[in-house]
Amino acid sequence: MPNRRSQRNSHDRARLKAARPIGVIGGTGAQGFGLALRWAQAGETVLIGSRDAARAQHAAEKIKKKLGPHAKVTGDENRAVCAACDLIVLTLPFEGHATLLKELKPSIRPGAIVVDTTVPLDASVGGRATRTLTVWQGSAAEQTAELVLVGVKVVAAFQNVGARLLADDGPVECDVIVCGDDREAVEIVRHLAAKIPGIRALDGGPLENARVLEQITALLIGFSVRNKTHCGIRITGLPNSAILGG
Amino acid sequence: MPNRRSQRNSHDRARLKAARPIGVIGGTGAQGFGLALRWAQAGETVLIGSRDAARAQHAAEKIKKKLGPHAKVTGDENRAVCAACDLIVLTLPFEGHATLLKELKPSIRPGAIVVDTTVPLDASVGGRATRTLTVWQGSAAEQTAELVLVGVKVVAAFQNVGARLLADDGPVECDVIVCGDDREAVEIVRHLAAKIPGIRALDGGPLENARVLEQITALLIGFSVRNKTHCGIRITGLPNSAILGG
Repeated sequence: MPNRRSQRNSHDRARLKAARPIGVIGGTGAQGFGLALRWAQAGETVLIGSRDAARAQHAAEKIKKKLGPHAKVTGDENRAVCAACDLIVLTLPFEGHATLLKELKPSIRPGAIVVDTTVPLDASVGGRATRTLTVWQGSAAEQTAELVLVGVKVVAAFQNVGARLLADDGPVECDVIVCGDDREAVEIVRHLAAKIPGIRALDGGPLENARVLEQITALLIGFSVRNKTHCGIRITGLPNSAILGG
Repeated sequence: MPNRRSQRNSHDRARLKAARPIGVIGGTGAQGFGLALRWAQAGETVLIGSRDAARAQHAAEKIKKKLGPHAKVTGDENRAVCAACDLIVLTLPFEGHATLLKELKPSIRPGAIVVDTTVPLDASVGGRATRTLTVWQGSAAEQTAELVLVGVKVVAAFQNVGARLLADDGPVECDVIVCGDDREAVEIVRHLAAKIPGIRALDGGPLENARVLEQITALLIGFSVRNKTHCGIRITGLPNSAILGG
């Protein structure tokens, strides 16, 4: 008979793995669409959000056309998606990020997990995609944490996975480094990332480390441009216990 | 008969690969010592520099004891090493970096390549090794570029290769991203990095990208501490033509 501790652990594990609808805000953009496609492919329920509900529905139809009618993907206006999900993934260009977040703030459920994938590229203000802007709070993800209501859990992830790697059919040759101050939320997002073939989901420590993740993207864009390819990142030397997926 | 162009190319290649003494400033510290050991092992001529010539000589003896008397490694005071080498590698803790560089400035040869491995860790001022300080110039390497005489070529590299990975006997599971504004100097340093087994030497673009390299180290230290291991980084998706060594 299992003891109380192992019962609790198996409860926890079940909760971490439980299917919950994933709301992809800005899911008609290249990165959001790629993530929505991959999660729908993994059997997850995905709600694509856009400013324009019709465009979101169109994106959902496109995924169904690719994966078949059994794919659990729908589209709606961003606020409606926020109101319907406990797990929200922000895939927004930095130039519209703070403004949209202020609009969405009342629609985000208390206790929800908000996964921020945003990179404050210099390109947001007409500069280079190989450089980042300095964000007052330290990173786009920390800015997000300041803009949401208390109790909403912000987690930084997926900055280093390019849209093109997600759009291809093959495994994604990239680690997803997940940073956040709520340990349970980090674990949930790691499980979410590991659903995409090839991705190894790693615990990257506190949310403030999003500063480094965001800058790595600018470096990777430089590598990709110079070599006319699509680059990713891997951390070496980790024990298997630190790696989810792959 | 080879045409003029291929002759020139083979000249260039020969020059890039030509053995030149490598001066390792701060080479009695863990990272400098590890690099000196690896290069001596690869048959290079290495001059270990320290504030104290006797300590530098002691470190050189230690390497000879390990590799045998044929190892081409000697030790001397930092300024003497600078004066003797066209290729200098700075392996200094950030807290003493700018001060020592001002002392060394008149001893660095015109046209020399200065490879900066420095990471401005918050630990330099009593903070955490998982965070970096903001350097006015953008990075420690850009600070170095400001402190040396015009014509000295500063290249950023080796920030992400931990001393422990170098001290082990096995191949180093880490890419070395080389950043600099002088393309020839970057190529020379890539060849230098590729002499260490396991290391893949990559062109990381302009010197300003050292900002990202330096921050990656703080992230890797976090991974290493959390997992009681020694982590490195690899860039994925690159064509073979972009990779030297490995």
